[in-house]
Amino acid sequence: MLEVGLGQPSLPSSYNHSMLLTGVFTPVPTPFDRDGAVDLARFAAALGRWVDSPLTGFVVLGSNGEAPFLDEHETDEVVAAARSAIPRGRPLVVGTGRESTDQTIRATRRAADLGADAVLVRTPGFFKAQMTSGVFIRHYQAVADASSVPVILYNFTAVTGVTIAPAAVSALSRHPNIVGIKESSADVGQLADLVAETPESFAVLSGSARTFHAALCVGASGGILALAALLPEACVRVFELTRAAQHDQARALQRRLMTLARLLGSVYGVPGFKAALNLSGFDVGYPRPPLLPLAPDAVARVRDALHAFQEVPA
Amino acid sequence: MLEVGLGQPSLPSSYNHSMLLTGVFTPVPTPFDRDGAVDLARFAAALGRWVDSPLTGFVVLGSNGEAPFLDEHETDEVVAAARSAIPRGRPLVVGTGRESTDQTIRATRRAADLGADAVLVRTPGFFKAQMTSGVFIRHYQAVADASSVPVILYNFTAVTGVTIAPAAVSALSRHPNIVGIKESSADVGQLADLVAETPESFAVLSGSARTFHAALCVGASGGILALAALLPEACVRVFELTRAAQHDQARALQRRLMTLARLLGSVYGVPGFKAALNLSGFDVGYPRPPLLPLAPDAVARVRDALHAFQEVPA
Amino acid sequence: MLEVGLGQPSLPSSYNHSMLLTGVFTPVPTPFDRDGAVDLARFAAALGRWVDSPLTGFVVLGSNGEAPFLDEHETDEVVAAARSAIPRGRPLVVGTGRESTDQTIRATRRAADLGADAVLVRTPGFFKAQMTSGVFIRHYQAVADASSVPVILYNFTAVTGVTIAPAAVSALSRHPNIVGIKESSADVGQLADLVAETPESFAVLSGSARTFHAALCVGASGGILALAALLPEACVRVFELTRAAQHDQARALQRRLMTLARLLGSVYGVPGFKAALNLSGFDVGYPRPPLLPLAPDAVARVRDALHAFQEVPA
Amino acid sequence: MLEVGLGQPSLPSSYNHSMLLTGVFTPVPTPFDRDGAVDLARFAAALGRWVDSPLTGFVVLGSNGEAPFLDEHETDEVVAAARSAIPRGRPLVVGTGRESTDQTIRATRRAADLGADAVLVRTPGFFKAQMTSGVFIRHYQAVADASSVPVILYNFTAVTGVTIAPAAVSALSRHPNIVGIKESSADVGQLADLVAETPESFAVLSGSARTFHAALCVGASGGILALAALLPEACVRVFELTRAAQHDQARALQRRLMTLARLLGSVYGVPGFKAALNLSGFDVGYPRPPLLPLAPDAVARVRDALHAFQEVPA
Repeated sequence: MLEVGLGQPSLPSSYNHSMLLTGVFTPVPTPFDRDGAVDLARFAAALGRWVDSPLTGFVVLGSNGEAPFLDEHETDEVVAAARSAIPRGRPLVVGTGRESTDQTIRATRRAADLGADAVLVRTPGFFKAQMTSGVFIRHYQAVADASSVPVILYNFTAVTGVTIAPAAVSALSRHPNIVGIKESSADVGQLADLVAETPESFAVLSGSARTFHAALCVGASGGILALAALLPEACVRVFELTRAAQHDQARALQRRLMTLARLLGSVYGVPGFKAALNLSGFDVGYPRPPLLPLAPDAVARVRDALHAFQEVPA
Repeated sequence: MLEVGLGQPSLPSSYNHSMLLTGVFTPVPTPFDRDGAVDLARFAAALGRWVDSPLTGFVVLGSNGEAPFLDEHETDEVVAAARSAIPRGRPLVVGTGRESTDQTIRATRRAADLGADAVLVRTPGFFKAQMTSGVFIRHYQAVADASSVPVILYNFTAVTGVTIAPAAVSALSRHPNIVGIKESSADVGQLADLVAETPESFAVLSGSARTFHAALCVGASGGILALAALLPEACVRVFELTRAAQHDQARALQRRLMTLARLLGSVYGVPGFKAALNLSGFDVGYPRPPLLPLAPDAVARVRDALHAFQEVPA
Repeated sequence: MLEVGLGQPSLPSSYNHSMLLTGVFTPVPTPFDRDGAVDLARFAAALGRWVDSPLTGFVVLGSNGEAPFLDEHETDEVVAAARSAIPRGRPLVVGTGRESTDQTIRATRRAADLGADAVLVRTPGFFKAQMTSGVFIRHYQAVADASSVPVILYNFTAVTGVTIAPAAVSALSRHPNIVGIKESSADVGQLADLVAETPESFAVLSGSARTFHAALCVGASGGILALAALLPEACVRVFELTRAAQHDQARALQRRLMTLARLLGSVYGVPGFKAALNLSGFDVGYPRPPLLPLAPDAVARVRDALHAFQEVPA
Repeated sequence: MLEVGLGQPSLPSSYNHSMLLTGVFTPVPTPFDRDGAVDLARFAAALGRWVDSPLTGFVVLGSNGEAPFLDEHETDEVVAAARSAIPRGRPLVVGTGRESTDQTIRATRRAADLGADAVLVRTPGFFKAQMTSGVFIRHYQAVADASSVPVILYNFTAVTGVTIAPAAVSALSRHPNIVGIKESSADVGQLADLVAETPESFAVLSGSARTFHAALCVGASGGILALAALLPEACVRVFELTRAAQHDQARALQRRLMTLARLLGSVYGVPGFKAALNLSGFDVGYPRPPLLPLAPDAVARVRDALHAFQEVPA
């Protein structure tokens, strides 16, 4: 039932997509082998474990999937492999943002053809000074018009150096094929602005595990969280506790997650994400150069944080 | 009872100051007349109205009080006038941060002598590159050692250009005379970090009305909010609804407050704050040059936002 | 003789590449037609005019060439067309920076095969927090080892959000196949640091027309300047006057160039660059979406600046 | 003759103040004793040595004079002591910038009464979002109208977080009592813009020793450089060589100064400035808390840089 909703943009515009984007999604890392080649066997094995978890859905080829390092052929292989591993009924979202509008449309169409339920389209950001609200609106309208699957906006200022203004998101939220936004900042005020200026049916998703509970408090419908790959149950529990208004417990659990959230986020990035997963029994291989595997002292710090988390009783 | 707790640093360190800093505080503007002189008559009249509101307490000579524009003689007059207008039993917090440690200690002592229940001490920030955690820790320890009233740390990166690290706050939170921190950023993740790294008895106060509900969700004990001068009841209601875990209602009210929160905060600053109060029947005079009264088109925008807020039924 | 030096990395390492990178280079725009397709006819025609100018050499597929918008097939077509239009003996530099090391190596090899005399390799910058000096050094060493033509480093903080430290540049300047750096910032202090920490034989090129004369004063060997596409003679004259220590005249001419330098640089970017060229008789077509052609009021401002420049006697 | 020009704003506006502000000025540190008290004996002794150097003039109570740490009584003592030590005929410039217009006017008048030849007025910057060009223009006009000595604008973005736009400086440069600007940034492009948009008679002074030669190349009339307190002869020599268009020699000497310029500037700030002077035989005491004396390892690094400079033959 789920894939019907996500896969059919011809649904009436009153259809509430935010229900489909409600919950906890994980970005899926792209495993590389020691020589830097995409390792689809590792990818399928890791996905199998996540599919068995209570996670709502999956995002492949986002930032944590090292998407900027893949060529278009590799991109297609990864999407196809993800669709094979993820049963219909569990949302598969594919990152298809590129710098040019045309490249983005082509990547979006290929992802849809390969089975994506929705696409996550990061703002272009290379020509920062020219990235005005008008430019963003035209870009996303063109992509959403051309896409056969719903489009999720994606603002990631720390990476792109640009920010799509809440007013532009508000305008775009009226497009029937634009169903939500992922905002990666820990600035929950920005998130609250987005919730305030878009309809109820428009999903606002947090990309910051550090502020996940707060994001839900201000009206986010869920999150796309690297931490959820590592600790699916805990992240889903924060979501459920918050939904049930059990805030003291939600806050206590969120507090326990802070150290790992920071280490996987701004501190160690993709190398930290992969190291933590490798330490936890997911084999996700190496990052691709120029990224290097996490240095030994940093691995030790991640290991300590994992142990500290596991030893504290929930 | 309240002023006893705040006024006596000789209390056992197990005493929970955060209970005293729990709730909604307003920064109090300093009225100037048309010629730029401090207008104590307007000040007393406006304070009288706020005293009759459900606000928890008051902060004078903060940023919104245009403290950097006052000389030390004017400073003392304002503190004395505030203490006259605010009954014992309602916390009066005075901003006493200066660039040098010695200046800060002297301002703190004078404020305490004039009846302050606590002092709010903004980080020094002129020599940004030298403002390390070690420097902050020495500075605040010296001030707290010398102060006869409790000290509240104050981080306001947008103004100072520096940030006191959560680890330094954690270290300082063990000082028996340092009882809390005001964090002005809308970065609720930063706030959550502060809550996570300080004891329960240490108060973390939000300075951002835009994220007040979210701040409470992550464990803030209250806020010092310019918006609370304008809409005391609504801000107190957000606090109470959140405490009662009535989050849908809290969020709905927070959402209604967003436009005004933004206009009074980052958009129009002190001139917007004073204009909004003047439009609402508080007579708080003019800002002091180089600040100029709000331009007419901006006043119109503030008026519209006030009307929009009042017309929407709660 | 020139192409020999640039084309043969097997030259002894004492060979002074900076002589080959001495002078004024222009970035070459990539013309698109109204439908967004690469327009090789316009490209060849415009190049023909620049070849007839006193410019030292040419950079294709840099930022001003909208390189991030081209796929690899289009990239190859543009390089081949450039080599056809630019006679051997005039340096053709090709931008080949990509996010992954492997992508960069492949683009570099293809450019060399198609006749590039050197490659200009922008720092990767997507995963900003991980872009340490160690990462940059490994990345560039791998590229330089794999390249059959000399490599020029490229720091463009305004676009990438990262900065390669002078110490890392110093280390890389010892590699026999790394012959220079383009620094796009107007921070001439940064440029002076680079000159101070690299050997005489290492070329430091400015990317900022606004500070071209100053850059030459602190030891830059030349510039890669969008303004040089529009005003080749004037830019070359600044270079020659400065080399001849005729600083009063150089400064006076530089001063006349300031308005256009700003408009083509930080103010209007690629749309301004293309608009100015189209106004000046170079037909370079349209920018590619999401970039839009310059708005009419901005075109008028560029036209005024062009007229003002031409009317003032040199 | 010099003091006549600087001291008499009633001079015809065609009078070329930039001639008076042409050369190398040093900011003078304010010595504190071990207990943090202003040490006027040390101050007079150090000034005596600088007066015997070839420096053009002196700036007291700038940032390097720790002005934000002094109260108004101490301020007056320092100005009076400086005037006693500096003979009429050598320009004495006093920093009098404050946050409010009125405070700035009062400080300016007191400095003039105590013998200042000109005042250096840093932009206010506390209320950053409100510091528009219009606000700056009104502020400086009011100060210049009220001052009996010439006013020098002062832009120091790294400290204030604000920047006065070249267009505002251009407008203010027409005021007969505003004679120049100190720009502290290493962004020589910003400096070049200021030179281009102000009359020849308006002095543009660099505050960055790291880019002093470059600043002179783009038309600065001189510098106010912490490094000039430490190495007066070398800084004056850079100035003279550049004026004589002996750029190779100027550049070589500038290059030798880079390490110390960096250490005294952005790296170690006032503690580094005082440590370097103390190591060089000037006794300038301690910084005032919260600033701490330079840590031993940093002192060692400064000592090494001093030795390296002295050992290299000019």
